[in-house]
This record gives sequence, structure tokens and C-alpha cells, in this order.
Amino acid sequence: MELAYRMASRAVGTTASNPPVGCIIVKNNKIISRGWTQPLGRPHAEIHALNGVKDKSLLKGAELFCTLEPCSHFGKTNPCVDSIINAGIRTVYIGDIDKNPLVNGKGIEKLKLNKVKVLLNKEHKGVSDLNKIFFNSKINNKPNITIKIASTLDSKIATLSSKSKWITNELSRSHGHYLRFKSDSLLVGKNTIIIDNPDLHCRLAGLSPFSPDIFILDSNLEIPLNKKIFKPTKRNVYIFYNKNIEKNKLKKYNKNKIILIPVNYINKSLDLNDVAIKMCELGAQRVLVEGGAELITQLIDKKLVDKLYWFRASKIIGKEGLNAVSNLNISKMSSIKELSLVSNMQIQSDTLEIYKRK
Amino acid sequence: MELAYRMASRAVGTTASNPPVGCIIVKNNKIISRGWTQPLGRPHAEIHALNGVKDKSLLKGAELFCTLEPCSHFGKTNPCVDSIINAGIRTVYIGDIDKNPLVNGKGIEKLKLNKVKVLLNKEHKGVSDLNKIFFNSKINNKPNITIKIASTLDSKIATLSSKSKWITNELSRSHGHYLRFKSDSLLVGKNTIIIDNPDLHCRLAGLSPFSPDIFILDSNLEIPLNKKIFKPTKRNVYIFYNKNIEKNKLKKYNKNKIILIPVNYINKSLDLNDVAIKMCELGAQRVLVEGGAELITQLIDKKLVDKLYWFRASKIIGKEGLNAVSNLNISKMSSIKELSLVSNMQIQSDTLEIYKRK
Repeated sequence: MELAYRMASRAVGTTASNPPVGCIIVKNNKIISRGWTQPLGRPHAEIHALNGVKDKSLLKGAELFCTLEPCSHFGKTNPCVDSIINAGIRTVYIGDIDKNPLVNGKGIEKLKLNKVKVLLNKEHKGVSDLNKIFFNSKINNKPNITIKIASTLDSKIATLSSKSKWITNELSRSHGHYLRFKSDSLLVGKNTIIIDNPDLHCRLAGLSPFSPDIFILDSNLEIPLNKKIFKPTKRNVYIFYNKNIEKNKLKKYNKNKIILIPVNYINKSLDLNDVAIKMCELGAQRVLVEGGAELITQLIDKKLVDKLYWFRASKIIGKEGLNAVSNLNISKMSSIKELSLVSNMQIQSDTLEIYKRK
Repeated sequence: MELAYRMASRAVGTTASNPPVGCIIVKNNKIISRGWTQPLGRPHAEIHALNGVKDKSLLKGAELFCTLEPCSHFGKTNPCVDSIINAGIRTVYIGDIDKNPLVNGKGIEKLKLNKVKVLLNKEHKGVSDLNKIFFNSKINNKPNITIKIASTLDSKIATLSSKSKWITNELSRSHGHYLRFKSDSLLVGKNTIIIDNPDLHCRLAGLSPFSPDIFILDSNLEIPLNKKIFKPTKRNVYIFYNKNIEKNKLKKYNKNKIILIPVNYINKSLDLNDVAIKMCELGAQRVLVEGGAELITQLIDKKLVDKLYWFRASKIIGKEGLNAVSNLNISKMSSIKELSLVSNMQIQSDTLEIYKRK
């Protein structure tokens, strides 16, 4: 199951709206194949592993380990259980039941009906964390939200005049791009696009095709269409806007592929809970937030942050620099926001602190 | 020499205005004694080690390792070289020549004149760093300045209403007290005393007698005398004030043991270079700065910081909290202040980053 987990980890961030699944096939105590969910979710991990065995007779009587219950329904692919049964697999070890209502035990049922032995092994922490993220997005409409901050030692993300190129070192920035690769969605505020004009691709060699879909908060649809982010690419670009604004503001988007999503508008800003639900409906599971400070602050305030990566350079800007986190209106120590430290490390001259939800 | 260095390290912070020195005595390839500079600088390490050998005949023909040249002058103690010669030590290994003009080779000279073999071993980095701090304070009037900051994840040291008890955890605060133990002097701004009213003792069990001397910047002599810091204790309390203020402001200090030091006043604040010189003249070698933000900022701006310990809790206060570092008037990335990361570690829920001068 540990090896199946490692296969699943390879797929993280590239499979939405499918879950990242890993699969190992064993015959006579020897691994004969391995598989993981392929980009955009197909083929599934089990099929990927089955396809890896050229001599199909080897599969007869083999054991198959997979991190999640094999599917039993016809979707974008044929049901995996059929392929497993037809291949002659004797035993299937499963990391968890797929809580997706379309499966939810039906895969196991069909395997058993066809004389395949099924063993449930829910003990693996890594597998269970992976599946939890999928279930949360699919069933509870709660995406896994990771914030990335790159700041100075004194937590400033730019000088007063918005200069920030570059605060952290090259290796830290590469790590940031790796986070993009491992996310299926990137959520940013309007000002990040207007001021920094980023293209938000994953710039690691060979991984650009895995750049996450872009979700922009622009309540009043103010971002000019000539920004780099809107250049046509394979990924989808969504804009969330205040559903109450005048409809003629939507016109300018007629001729391009940007997808506009109306959301609730509460307390002078877009309702982030509504945004999260809509993102899940669009298949988002792992959301990376790279700014701006206002969006990050709202997510912290609403306790929507699952993980925080804080890259910190050995540099000091001073009080007048721009803060990584904006106003939280905290006056008492008891109302301070708390996270849980996971680890910290050196990245050459920078440090990286990783926190998770407390 | 490594072992002698470890002995010297024990004495760090407790020996001012003497240097912390370590000493090892070896006879027939066996360590027969060890010593380090005792509190307030006497006895010296060599005497401490020589005294440790009860059977004085063992010392005849022994080898002595010490991290700094033994003294040759009569000060608060008799010259160490005399004791070494009289004991019959055959060879002395020395970590460095004592650049203090009172010694500066005279110790080595006298040893050689008395048929003691002397070998200089300047290769040990730790020893050389220790001695450099002593030389810098004694000869160049430059104390070693360490800043301690305890902040939230987003670098705030208190809420807007100055609430800060406690941001970091108990273990981090103990580590902070250890830094006090390892410093001979503590420098703070006026507001730290007025607002927080700390007593600034080292509160680690048994180490309270090693609480550093207190140096307060109070240009206009505004701190009320009923503050905890002024309660009579063994340590000295100094106040630096603007030498140009009206002399009648000094009167209120007549009846207590606070020592007032006039310093230059430049650009609406006390001249920190003058402060540093005066501190060295008073014997300071290792200065710990615990606040406030204005003092820390000036030290960073004037590049007077040798080391920075930044304790960081897994908590967020937000933009309106008080900044650890104040205005530095940096608008371009090229004028950003840079330090060099030494190490970072976890202290339970907190992190500690250690930086040094770049």
C-alpha cells in the first residue's frame, strides 16, 4: 500500500476532477506492474497498471493494490472493476471505499460477486489524507486550500512601491512552481493580475502542460483583457464576479474563452464560501493561492486555509513595506489566529516554513 | 584545542570585561585538569585549571592548552604566566596572541624566556571567533550585538493595543533567557521599559546571578524611577542620555545607583556609534538587544547587527499589529537590508531562525 501511495503521489495535481490513485500489481510476491492516474484522470491507475503487463497470462491469480476503490460505473472510461475481473486478478487490496456516490461500495460489490477477494486496508495515513482531499471536494464541496507566501524576514512581500522582483531566491521560486504543478487550481485576487501581470504558468522544465487552471476574483470585472493571464492556452481561466453587477459588463468577454462565474456578494466582497463551492463543482480539489494579501487574509480569517507555505528570504524591508497578511482586527491575544507548524527547512539563503490548519 | 574551546564556551557571557578563556592540562597524553574563566573574570582559566590539580608534582612537564595567550601583567589577578612557569609546565599551546596592549606577546615572551615551549595554534574557528569578539570590544570599541525578536508568523510583536503575553511558547522564552545568560549586557529602548515594565533578569534556574548589566537609551531621561528595572540588584543599570539636555533633569537620580552616561545626539536620536563605544569602555563585549522596534531598526540600518535570533510563533496577528522592524525607507530592491542565514530549527510550535551579519 505504501508503494501504491507513492504511485498516487505522482499523480497529485494533474488528475482533476478525478482523484489521484496509485496501483501496484503483485504476482508470486513480485511486483509485475505499477500505475497511477494519468493526466486529466484517464486512464485510471488500475488500467494504467494492467496495461503495463504485456503477457496478460501473468495477471491470472495476481494481487492488485490500489489506494481507492476501483470504479464500477461508465464515465469517461469503462469501469475498472470489469478490467480487473476480466484480467483474472484474484485479490484486490483497497485503501478506502470511494465515497463518490457513483461508486461508494459498488466496485467492491461487483468484484466480490465475480469471485475476486477484496481486502480493505484503511491504515495508511498518506493514502487516507489523499482520499480525504478528494472526498472533501467531491462530497462536501470543500477544496483543499494551500497558501503560498514569499516574503522578507520581516514578512513584507514588496517595497512600498510594489517592487518584489525578487525577494526569494531561485530555488525557492522553483519550489513555488512545483506547488503549482501539484495543484489543479490557482486562485488569485484581482490586484495580483492588474499590478504584477503574471502568466502563472508552471515554469519547471516539462511541467508547463500541468499548469493549474486559473480562478480570478474580480467582483466588478475590472481586469483589462490584455493581461498575460488571458493569453489563450490549454488551461481554463475562470473569473468570479459579483452576480449583482450590471449585465452589460459581461459583454467584453464575448469573444474569448474566459469563463465567467457569478457568485454571491456579501460584506463588500465575493463570498469565499460560494467561491469554494463553485470551484469544487468545476472539479477543483487542490487550490493554490498566491495572493494578494487581501484574499489571503480573508481565507485566514474564515479559517479556510488547509496549508501554508511561507518562503522567507534573509532580507529586511521594514515597516513601510507591503504586508503579507492584511488587517484581521485582532486586539486581544485570545483572538489571534493559530496554525500548526509542520516543518521548516533551509533553501539556501531562504527558509521555508510549512503550516497546516490547527 | 577543541576541548579548551568548549571550556571557554562555558564562560561566555559571564566574564566581562575579561575574555572567556578555556584551558586543558595534559600529562602523558591524559587530561589531568580543565579550567575556564570564572565569573567576573577571576580566577583566569589557566589558574582555574592549575588549581584543579591537587598533586602539584603532576604539573611538572605537563602540557597546557589555552584559547588565548596567558596574561603577563598584574591586574585584578597575578600574571598567569608566573603560575604556569612556577608549576613546571613544559609546553603551552595558545589559540591566539592576546591583542590587548597590556599583553600582546609579552606573555609568550616571558614563557619562552623561562624555557617553556610555546606553540601558537590559530586554526580553530570557534576559538578565533571567541577571541575576535573580545578584541573587537577591547581594541576597536565595537561590541558584539545580538538582536532577539519574538514575533508571530507574520512578524508582529504585539497587537495594536500592545498585547504580547505570550506570543512565543515557554521553551522559546527559556531560550531567550539563555541568550541573556550568554550576554554580559542588555540594551533596550526607553519604550520597552515604560510600556512593558520588564525586570530583564535571566530567569533560568540558578542563572539569575548572571543576568546581564542593563543599558537603557533614554535621551530625555523620561522613564519613571518606579519601574521594575530600577529595583536594586547586583547588576549595574546604565542610562544613556542626550548630553545636551538640561542638567537639572539629572537630579532625580541622586539617591540611587543608576549610572548616567551622556552621549552624542544626532538626527533626533542618541548616536548609536557613541553608545557602542561607551559600552565597550564599560566592559561590554556581548550585547543583547530585545527591543524596541525603533532601536532594532536603527541598528539594522546602521549595519551594527552581528547576529539576529528570530523566534516565530505559529500565529497570525495581521497588518494592524505592531511590526518587529520599523521604517527603513526602502523603495528599491537594491537597497534592501540583507543578512546571512545561519540555521533554523523548530522549537515545538515555534521556529527559531538565526542570522548573522552578511
